[in-house]
Amino acid sequence: MKQTEYFSLKFQSGKLIFLDQTKLPFTENYVETDDYNRIAEAIERLEIRGAPLIGIAAAYALALAIKDKDNPKEIFYSAYKRLASTRPTAVNLFAALDEMKNQFEMVIERDDIYNLMLNKAEEIHKTDEEYCRKIGRHGLNIFKKKSNVLTHCNTGRLATGGDGTAFNVIKTAFDNGLINLVYADETRPLLQGSRLTAFELDKHGIPFSLQTDSSAAVLLNQNKVDLVVTGADRIALNGDTANKIGTYTLAILCNFHNIPFYVAAPSTTIDRKILTGDDITIEYRNKSEILSLNNQPVTSKHFETFAPAFDVTPSYLITGIITEEGVFSFPYNFLR
Amino acid sequence: MKQTEYFSLKFQSGKLIFLDQTKLPFTENYVETDDYNRIAEAIERLEIRGAPLIGIAAAYALALAIKDKDNPKEIFYSAYKRLASTRPTAVNLFAALDEMKNQFEMVIERDDIYNLMLNKAEEIHKTDEEYCRKIGRHGLNIFKKKSNVLTHCNTGRLATGGDGTAFNVIKTAFDNGLINLVYADETRPLLQGSRLTAFELDKHGIPFSLQTDSSAAVLLNQNKVDLVVTGADRIALNGDTANKIGTYTLAILCNFHNIPFYVAAPSTTIDRKILTGDDITIEYRNKSEILSLNNQPVTSKHFETFAPAFDVTPSYLITGIITEEGVFSFPYNFLR
Repeated sequence: MKQTEYFSLKFQSGKLIFLDQTKLPFTENYVETDDYNRIAEAIERLEIRGAPLIGIAAAYALALAIKDKDNPKEIFYSAYKRLASTRPTAVNLFAALDEMKNQFEMVIERDDIYNLMLNKAEEIHKTDEEYCRKIGRHGLNIFKKKSNVLTHCNTGRLATGGDGTAFNVIKTAFDNGLINLVYADETRPLLQGSRLTAFELDKHGIPFSLQTDSSAAVLLNQNKVDLVVTGADRIALNGDTANKIGTYTLAILCNFHNIPFYVAAPSTTIDRKILTGDDITIEYRNKSEILSLNNQPVTSKHFETFAPAFDVTPSYLITGIITEEGVFSFPYNFLR
Repeated sequence: MKQTEYFSLKFQSGKLIFLDQTKLPFTENYVETDDYNRIAEAIERLEIRGAPLIGIAAAYALALAIKDKDNPKEIFYSAYKRLASTRPTAVNLFAALDEMKNQFEMVIERDDIYNLMLNKAEEIHKTDEEYCRKIGRHGLNIFKKKSNVLTHCNTGRLATGGDGTAFNVIKTAFDNGLINLVYADETRPLLQGSRLTAFELDKHGIPFSLQTDSSAAVLLNQNKVDLVVTGADRIALNGDTANKIGTYTLAILCNFHNIPFYVAAPSTTIDRKILTGDDITIEYRNKSEILSLNNQPVTSKHFETFAPAFDVTPSYLITGIITEEGVFSFPYNFLR
């Protein structure tokens, strides 16, 4: 296998094959399944994660759920409910589930319903791949020179159906000679930065350095960062953006140090039903994620924690939002 | 032993007994030694840590170094050098070493030189204990009501010769009915918050909750924090303050959310030789502290890191500095 030949998931011979991201970067273990419930578990356990990717995985899961079923109706709606209950914040999950539901209700009487559902899941997957490509291309516009970039969490091939959102902005810029060094936040508590983004940067040969989330401010203060770009889990119509915990802090730090702060996400991350970030449901995680690491306790498991998985960045702190349609800037109005 | 009966170090029967802080909160293991080099190692390995406490430990180490020595001069200066090389940022270390050197040079001809040196070390210890008490008392002035307080790193009995700096501000406030809840940053990379501050808050029965460093902004945004108080490793004459990495971020976040940000430290933390924070030497730590935890790798040990142990907060972001002399406010001028 060529160095960069890894994938987050693919559908092959009637099964979903996905990379178990909880084992990275040490073990590249691919799991094969045609059981929608196993896919739901994978999303809950973060074996599959990243806002666009969990939508894609859930779409394939819904197709698999009705395969060879005499009465697909019953199983479809219970699978839909099961998958919708896995994670609450990323809107891409609900958008993909609803697209699959609309398709299901259109083709319910057809004999080739499974194939038609599978086609729809593959279309959702391909669309995201194409959106990633376009986001990378539009992202080139935010670089004024060969730059040092700081990013948070993971937004690469491991988080999307293509080569990523913020990650693909960085990768495309690197391919065009516009990246000097990437500073990757480790991203506590689950260390998606040091485990996943570092894995992907390393695979692509992009020079990078890891730091604790609380060290980003020092880099900004020392003029070591030209711009910051992150992904998003849900964007309100006014541009308020939910993303991995720590993003709001970064946006405030950029504002303080007068450094551009960008968000990159496909339009499927925009929640057309909500006007502002106040309406975004924030997932709170189990305290064991803070009190232990790799199942090893770091302190007493009896201590109390405050463990939001995401935070909301108000749109006025965001210099630009990069989607497959272009680079938008404040004030945002995604109703257009 | 009563619940709260733990100590960071004490001198007894010719030996220094210290609590190995790297094993907390799981194991309370006390180490006995009369070897100054073992104490130097303990400071390097962070078995003994906290700006005031490493000064006190180094003072006892210098007394022990010359015990029963025919030619104390040679060993004294090499022990002095060894201890001064352990950690670069906390000025209390150098202040204590220099106090011991002055004493040494005064009593070099005396037969009871060891006792005189030991008395000096005990005086340094007792002075810090008294300063902690006064800091806690002055700190009462920053509370307008029963409050939720956020703190960073560890500044308690484990970091000082008494009951702490920022921690004792919190503890004294708690004893006076002024604390509702303490939010403690876990404090990556070495988790002094979730390991040590949580241990001390628990011992004292003070209600608390732990969060990742990057979650503090959400608490501030949700009006869950009335004030923030941290310790300091070195303060310049203009009030610029070096403290555990993450403190600068907290100060910016407080500024953004209009929440008071306080620093508590004894006057021995003020470096009378430097005007601003630009002159503070910042310690960079080994990358293994970011790439692994409890000696367990979290990602590839070959990845590059940016690993400052401290950052510098400019004085204009600090609402007040609490010392044993009172609560000072911006603009600071510690030359007076």
